[in-house]
Amino acid sequence: MFEKVLIANRGEIAVRIIRACQELEIKTVAIYSEADKEALHVALADEAICIGPAKATDSYLNMHNILSAAVITGAQAIHPGFGFLAENSLFAEMCEECQITFIGPKAKTIDEMGNKVNARRLMIEAQVPVIPGSNGAIDSIEEAKKIAKKIGYPLMLKAAAGGGGKGIRKVMSEEELATHFSSAQKEALAAFGNGDMYIEKIIYPAKHIEVQILGDHFGHVIHLGERDCSLQRNNQKVLEEAPAHSLTDQLRQAIGETAIKAAKAVNYQNAGTIEFLVDEYNEFYFMEMNTRIQVEHPVTEMITGVDIVKWQLKIAANQPLLLKQKDIQLTGHAIECRLNAENPAFNFAPSPGTVSTLFLPSGCLGLRVDSAMYQGYTIPPFYDSMIAKIIVHGKTREEAILKMNRALLELVVEGVTTNQLFQIDLLTHPSVVKGEYDTSFLQTTFLPNWSSE
Amino acid sequence: MFEKVLIANRGEIAVRIIRACQELEIKTVAIYSEADKEALHVALADEAICIGPAKATDSYLNMHNILSAAVITGAQAIHPGFGFLAENSLFAEMCEECQITFIGPKAKTIDEMGNKVNARRLMIEAQVPVIPGSNGAIDSIEEAKKIAKKIGYPLMLKAAAGGGGKGIRKVMSEEELATHFSSAQKEALAAFGNGDMYIEKIIYPAKHIEVQILGDHFGHVIHLGERDCSLQRNNQKVLEEAPAHSLTDQLRQAIGETAIKAAKAVNYQNAGTIEFLVDEYNEFYFMEMNTRIQVEHPVTEMITGVDIVKWQLKIAANQPLLLKQKDIQLTGHAIECRLNAENPAFNFAPSPGTVSTLFLPSGCLGLRVDSAMYQGYTIPPFYDSMIAKIIVHGKTREEAILKMNRALLELVVEGVTTNQLFQIDLLTHPSVVKGEYDTSFLQTTFLPNWSSE
Repeated sequence: MFEKVLIANRGEIAVRIIRACQELEIKTVAIYSEADKEALHVALADEAICIGPAKATDSYLNMHNILSAAVITGAQAIHPGFGFLAENSLFAEMCEECQITFIGPKAKTIDEMGNKVNARRLMIEAQVPVIPGSNGAIDSIEEAKKIAKKIGYPLMLKAAAGGGGKGIRKVMSEEELATHFSSAQKEALAAFGNGDMYIEKIIYPAKHIEVQILGDHFGHVIHLGERDCSLQRNNQKVLEEAPAHSLTDQLRQAIGETAIKAAKAVNYQNAGTIEFLVDEYNEFYFMEMNTRIQVEHPVTEMITGVDIVKWQLKIAANQPLLLKQKDIQLTGHAIECRLNAENPAFNFAPSPGTVSTLFLPSGCLGLRVDSAMYQGYTIPPFYDSMIAKIIVHGKTREEAILKMNRALLELVVEGVTTNQLFQIDLLTHPSVVKGEYDTSFLQTTFLPNWSSE
Repeated sequence: MFEKVLIANRGEIAVRIIRACQELEIKTVAIYSEADKEALHVALADEAICIGPAKATDSYLNMHNILSAAVITGAQAIHPGFGFLAENSLFAEMCEECQITFIGPKAKTIDEMGNKVNARRLMIEAQVPVIPGSNGAIDSIEEAKKIAKKIGYPLMLKAAAGGGGKGIRKVMSEEELATHFSSAQKEALAAFGNGDMYIEKIIYPAKHIEVQILGDHFGHVIHLGERDCSLQRNNQKVLEEAPAHSLTDQLRQAIGETAIKAAKAVNYQNAGTIEFLVDEYNEFYFMEMNTRIQVEHPVTEMITGVDIVKWQLKIAANQPLLLKQKDIQLTGHAIECRLNAENPAFNFAPSPGTVSTLFLPSGCLGLRVDSAMYQGYTIPPFYDSMIAKIIVHGKTREEAILKMNRALLELVVEGVTTNQLFQIDLLTHPSVVKGEYDTSFLQTTFLPNWSSE
């Protein structure tokens, strides 16, 4: 096992990884921007190195500074967390060149799955069902029109190198196609340096169902069941649960096996997630693969008892994945609510500031809070607004909802505005209580009727 | 189910019970002394009633005031927690007279098991092995001498109505017996109004192993495995674990079955604990029964997934205990450390005061903190010094120890002195790491060699 690991991230995921390292007796190196001097991950790590100014491009995205920090401190591996450099294949390669283990899949795999046109092609070859669409990058508007005619409108026009909602357009008709094609392509070129576009049918209504994968360096791949992440606002997940309430056991098994097939097709190593859309006829389609740990991994940990971050470290250290698929039992039901420093009454505007009073819910069976906050902590305005994840585990989905409600009511965060009450209203909405929601529910049904009063 | 429950306690156990009620959608009534106006249990409950001055006899032991509070608020049941009135059969009877459900066993059972001479007799009748000793109260020194001769010295002289270490003497020789008999009897009379004494052989070396019991109102009784609570200072438990590391599966099963036999012998209802001593030859002896929830119940909850406090409420509300013995699987290993506001370097003197900075460990799988503290809270000097319970759950005992170590290192409590470093030293002592300790270890091996430096 590694003796020392550098965590190339901040916030709750950096804290999460430090805790896993400590429980495995691995020394930790935190990196931090000038804005994060007082951050919890800095306080908890064995060593901490400032790697640049507040702006992420100057610090948490500054590959040279991060690698220098690793070399100086003698870290043998780097855990990238999520966001920042987690899916940057160049960074993974640079780590390798410095003989530092990148805790994640191989650079080649990140590349293969990062380019969505390429990922689609690989999945089609592996006989994984993909969303009907173009079979490669589209060169011209003419080609786009031809494919669109086959698929039908409305459809999605997407950038091959896409991410963060950039280079994506919903196209309602052939008239719109030409304009959207040019503008999306320009946006993609500017954002990713790659203007390749592709077309996908719109699957609607649909559920966002994703499968957690673990694969070791010896070809052994298992899945840890699925999560339902359909409750999203602007493509950002808000509340996640595991297992997916709507899946039959048969469908669950089929999706799980397909996810393993997908992972094996790219010789996937370490933790990853295969995202699917499931339509109203229980047909499921590969959407994309996230080649990293995800925000919502704790719900899977709660129902399986498997510590995914610990396994990431063990797998990266060349240890065989000792878990067999038949050992993975899904027990009870878990829910995660993302607590953000934002103002839902003001279009969810970020609300950084100093946390003057903090009381995190705790106690009783099946409650976990992952956060990097402490009373007196100042949330900087430069990064993601997520400040805590509240995760509960109940014997049943009903019990989990009651437990989450109790936890959300117990939570006290003063000094900044959060989405606490929004989450309570969402959690207790009859459709959510019944588990009857799809990817459009939050934005088209819940939000228009929601009031912060 | 009850609509409203009054919690006749304070501190973390009151908070624990309020949380269970909230997750079962039961309204809660807190009671508090004048010293506890700012206590967390008061803030979390739906209603709160001041029932008297700081001194426990005027408030938390004031049965009339507590019952009045229940009647005024329309509470249908009272949960006594542990300590205070939890094992007071008169209070249980008074509840019944007021048509308020006492959440615990019947008053008659509390009485039967509370008198230790009586409990011994009942257990002998039920063919539960008891510690060799006198078969009833001893009337005279002459009788004591006769029995002592049979048992041999050293031996324990104990008050039938004993508790809290009062009326107990270790007797080394016949010469000592006469003096100790009179002084212990006087002490017992003064403390309990009952001077009945009995004699027990000293089982040494021994482990304190206790079995968690649940019984409903329909004669169904199960056990939830055992806990090892051998790490004690002055008969106060310090660190508990479940399951007991030293037990073979065969012994575990035998003790569990014996505990059920003991509980059935008194038609036990609700949650209770049968305490045993296990000697070096794996012989086990009934010590006593605690007819209430215990401080260390969370370690059992962690390894079984059973919420004991929720079941206390359900059972008291006449619901059948739906768990079958065969459904109870012990998974992994759990450890609890009791955090006390006390100064280990100064003979563990209580250290009340204001918590100026508080950071409770959290995050990752299998960590739970039960506490009634918040940053800025002032720990009053009038009550028990326990301020938090840190509980961890790992796949293995080794993992649980590493997790607890991480949690204890992460914990920050400023403003009062605690036993945090003492607990870290105890947890990481080679004998504790190996699981090789008995009831005398902490006091005779660990403490004499421990230094707070």
